[in-house]
Amino acid sequence: MELTTVEKALKIVLENSKNLPTETVSLTNSVGRVLKENIVADRDFPPFNRVSMDGIAIDIQTFINGQRTFKIEGIQPAGSPQITLLNTENCVEVMTGAMLPKNTNAVIPYEKVEINNGVAKIVIKELKHFQNIHKKGLDRKENDVLISENTIISSAEIGVMATVGKSEVKVAKNPKVLIISTGNELVDVNEMPKEHQIRRSNVYTLLMQLQTLGITAETTHINDDKSVLKQKIETFLEIYDVLLFSGAVSKGKFDFIPEVLADLGVKKLFHKVQQRPGKPFWFGKKIVDNKKSTVIFAFPGNPVSTFVSCLKYFIPWYTKSLGLKSTPKSAILSEDFTFKPQLTYFLQVKLVEKEGKLIAVPIAGKGSGDLANLVDCDGFLELPYNKTNFTKGEVYPLITFRK
Amino acid sequence: MELTTVEKALKIVLENSKNLPTETVSLTNSVGRVLKENIVADRDFPPFNRVSMDGIAIDIQTFINGQRTFKIEGIQPAGSPQITLLNTENCVEVMTGAMLPKNTNAVIPYEKVEINNGVAKIVIKELKHFQNIHKKGLDRKENDVLISENTIISSAEIGVMATVGKSEVKVAKNPKVLIISTGNELVDVNEMPKEHQIRRSNVYTLLMQLQTLGITAETTHINDDKSVLKQKIETFLEIYDVLLFSGAVSKGKFDFIPEVLADLGVKKLFHKVQQRPGKPFWFGKKIVDNKKSTVIFAFPGNPVSTFVSCLKYFIPWYTKSLGLKSTPKSAILSEDFTFKPQLTYFLQVKLVEKEGKLIAVPIAGKGSGDLANLVDCDGFLELPYNKTNFTKGEVYPLITFRK
Repeated sequence: MELTTVEKALKIVLENSKNLPTETVSLTNSVGRVLKENIVADRDFPPFNRVSMDGIAIDIQTFINGQRTFKIEGIQPAGSPQITLLNTENCVEVMTGAMLPKNTNAVIPYEKVEINNGVAKIVIKELKHFQNIHKKGLDRKENDVLISENTIISSAEIGVMATVGKSEVKVAKNPKVLIISTGNELVDVNEMPKEHQIRRSNVYTLLMQLQTLGITAETTHINDDKSVLKQKIETFLEIYDVLLFSGAVSKGKFDFIPEVLADLGVKKLFHKVQQRPGKPFWFGKKIVDNKKSTVIFAFPGNPVSTFVSCLKYFIPWYTKSLGLKSTPKSAILSEDFTFKPQLTYFLQVKLVEKEGKLIAVPIAGKGSGDLANLVDCDGFLELPYNKTNFTKGEVYPLITFRK
Repeated sequence: MELTTVEKALKIVLENSKNLPTETVSLTNSVGRVLKENIVADRDFPPFNRVSMDGIAIDIQTFINGQRTFKIEGIQPAGSPQITLLNTENCVEVMTGAMLPKNTNAVIPYEKVEINNGVAKIVIKELKHFQNIHKKGLDRKENDVLISENTIISSAEIGVMATVGKSEVKVAKNPKVLIISTGNELVDVNEMPKEHQIRRSNVYTLLMQLQTLGITAETTHINDDKSVLKQKIETFLEIYDVLLFSGAVSKGKFDFIPEVLADLGVKKLFHKVQQRPGKPFWFGKKIVDNKKSTVIFAFPGNPVSTFVSCLKYFIPWYTKSLGLKSTPKSAILSEDFTFKPQLTYFLQVKLVEKEGKLIAVPIAGKGSGDLANLVDCDGFLELPYNKTNFTKGEVYPLITFRK
C-alpha cells in the first residue's frame, strides 16, 4: 500500500479541522483559552490625568516665573474625587494613582522637594510641562480594541480584561473527545498484569497531552472483538466530535479498527504515513448529519507512535479548529545523525538553550516501544524522508511536549 | 535610600526559599507537578520478548538450513499466554504486542511472506536473529529508576508511571498563597468605577500567573487604612506561606505596607531595587515559629511593575522551593536600543523564532502603567543597569509569560 507523506497527511488533517463553537466562561477560568470577541476600552487608558509619582502638584507657570516655595493647600490621595488648587501659587500633595488636581500641570516627586511647616521647596532647576503625569488616554482611547479576537489568553490579557470589567469572556469551546484503547493485552493502571499483559498507558499520555491543551477528554477501553467494537464505536460517533484510537490499525489479525470504521460509514482519508514511528496511522471522518461530523485519529498502539502522532497531527488540527495559526518551531541539530529508511524520522531530542539558540541533542531511543526514553527528552526533531545524512548545525522542524 | 541591585535582590529572595512538603495526588492530576519520589520499573521493559511486527515467527535455524516454506501451526495474539512452536519446521502467526512463542527467535512481517492454504513462504533472502522482536529488558531492567525525583511531570512521565502501575504519585505540595491588593482607588471587576477610580487588575494578573504555575491562590483587598491593614495582615501571616501585595510600598502618604509589616515583626530583607519598572519592590520574611515562616513579596502597584516583578522574583523563589533548578532563558536583541538610567531595564519584547534562534523585538510601552501594551508582548528582555547602548545581535536574559 502506498504511504502518504507526512506533509500530505498533515494537509488532509488540517482540511478536516472544525469551526469550534463559542462559550462564555468566567475571567478566572479563561487563561489558556482562545478569545472569541474583541476586547474594547470602556474608557480612556488612563481614564484621567493620573499622578505617577508621590510628591506635589503645581501650576508650572509659577515656577517659570521664578517661584520655588509653595504652601501646601491640600492633599489628593488615590481613590478620591478630584480636588482643585484654589490659589495657583500654592501646591497640592499628590499620591501615585490619584487624579491630578484641577489647575495643576506638573508633579515634582518628594525626592526633589523639601517640606517644612506645610511649605514645599523645590530643589531642582528644571521642570517639564506634565512631568510625572500619565495623561488621560495616552495608552489607549475609549473604544480602542485592546485585545483582538483569536488571542490566546495569558495573565497579561487577564489584567486588561479585568481593567475593562470583563468578568465573563467569550472563548472557543473545546471539542468533545473520547480516547479509546484497544488490545486484549492491556490491563488498567491499578491492576497487576499477568506475564503476557501490560498496563494501559497510551490513553493516559493522550489524556494528559489533551489536558495540557485545556481539553478534558474521556477515556474507554474495548477488547479486540469486532462486534463489540462496531456496536460501541457506532454510539461514540454520535456523541463525540473527535475519537482518538490507540492500537489495532496495522496488519494484525485482530487489527479491526479500519474495517469496523469502514463498516460504520467512516470515510478513510488516509492510512499509513511515510514516517517512523507511527507508520500505520489511520485518519478519517464521518459525516453524521448536516450539523455534525466526527473526526477519527487512529494512532498505532506503540507508545511513542501514539505520543508523537498526537503532537504532530491532533494538536495542529485543534489549533486550526480554534481559529489560530500554527507557529512552527525549529531547532539546531547538535551532532551528525544518519537515518537511512525513506521515512520522515521523528528523532527524540533533549533541548538546550544557549545564547538565544535552541540546540537539539539526539537521545538514542530503542524503537517505538521505548516510552521510558521520552523521560529524558523534550521533543522530536522532524527529519525529512528524502535525506539520509543530517549534519550538525542544520535546522529542522521541532515538536515539543514540555511547557 | 540605597537601591538593591537586581542580582542581589534575587539572591536574597532565593536564600529565603522554602522546602515545600509533599502530598499524594492521583496520576491524572499530576501533570505539571514536581515528582517527589523515584519511579522504579516493577518488571523488565518490555516484560517479555515482545513481537514488534505482525507476521510469522520461526526458528531461524531452519531458515539458515535452507527452508523457505513453513506450515502455520498456530497463532499468538497480543494479550494471550505464550504458546509453544511444537515442530520447529513450522511457524506461528504472531501479532504486534504478543509474547514471542517458545522455540522461535525471528519474526518475519506479513509484507515479506506469502500465505497460501495455511503455509507461509518467506520471500526475502536474509533474516537476522531476533529481528522484529523487542527483547525482554532491552529498554529497562526491573528495579531501574525510570524517572528521578524532582522531575516536572509531563505526558511522557504519565505514560511511564501508568505502565508501572502508579495510580497515585508523591509530588511537591504547593505553598498557600494570598494575593492582596491595596488602594482606595480600586473597585472590583464587575463594578462600575467612578471617574477617580479604576478596577482591580493586579490581583487577577497575579492570580493567573500563579494558576499557570499550578498554584491555586486566594485574593483579597484592603483599603488604605493602617489599623485595618495591621489587623488583617496579622491574621494572614499565621495562615499563609506567602503574601503577595500589590501597591502601597512607595513614598506616598498612604503607603502603609512597609510600616505595618515592620510593626508586625516582619523582617525587611530589602526595599527598593535598581530596576525599572518595579523600583519600590519590598521583600521580607516573618518567622512565625519553629515550623512556620511567611515570605512577603510587596510589589509596587503599577500594573507592569507587579507583573514583571512576580515573574522575576516569585517564580524563581517557587522553582527553588520545589527543589528544581532554574533554567535561564535568553534571546537575541533584534535592533539597537538605548536606555540611560542606571537601572536594570525590563524591556517589553515580542519573540520571533527563526532558524532555531530566538529573536526579541522591542515593543515600545508607555511606562509601568501601560498594561495594554503587554498584550502585544511575549516577555521581557533584562538589560543590565551598567550599560546604556544595547546593540542588535546581543544576547540578554529573557523572562517569558506565555506558554
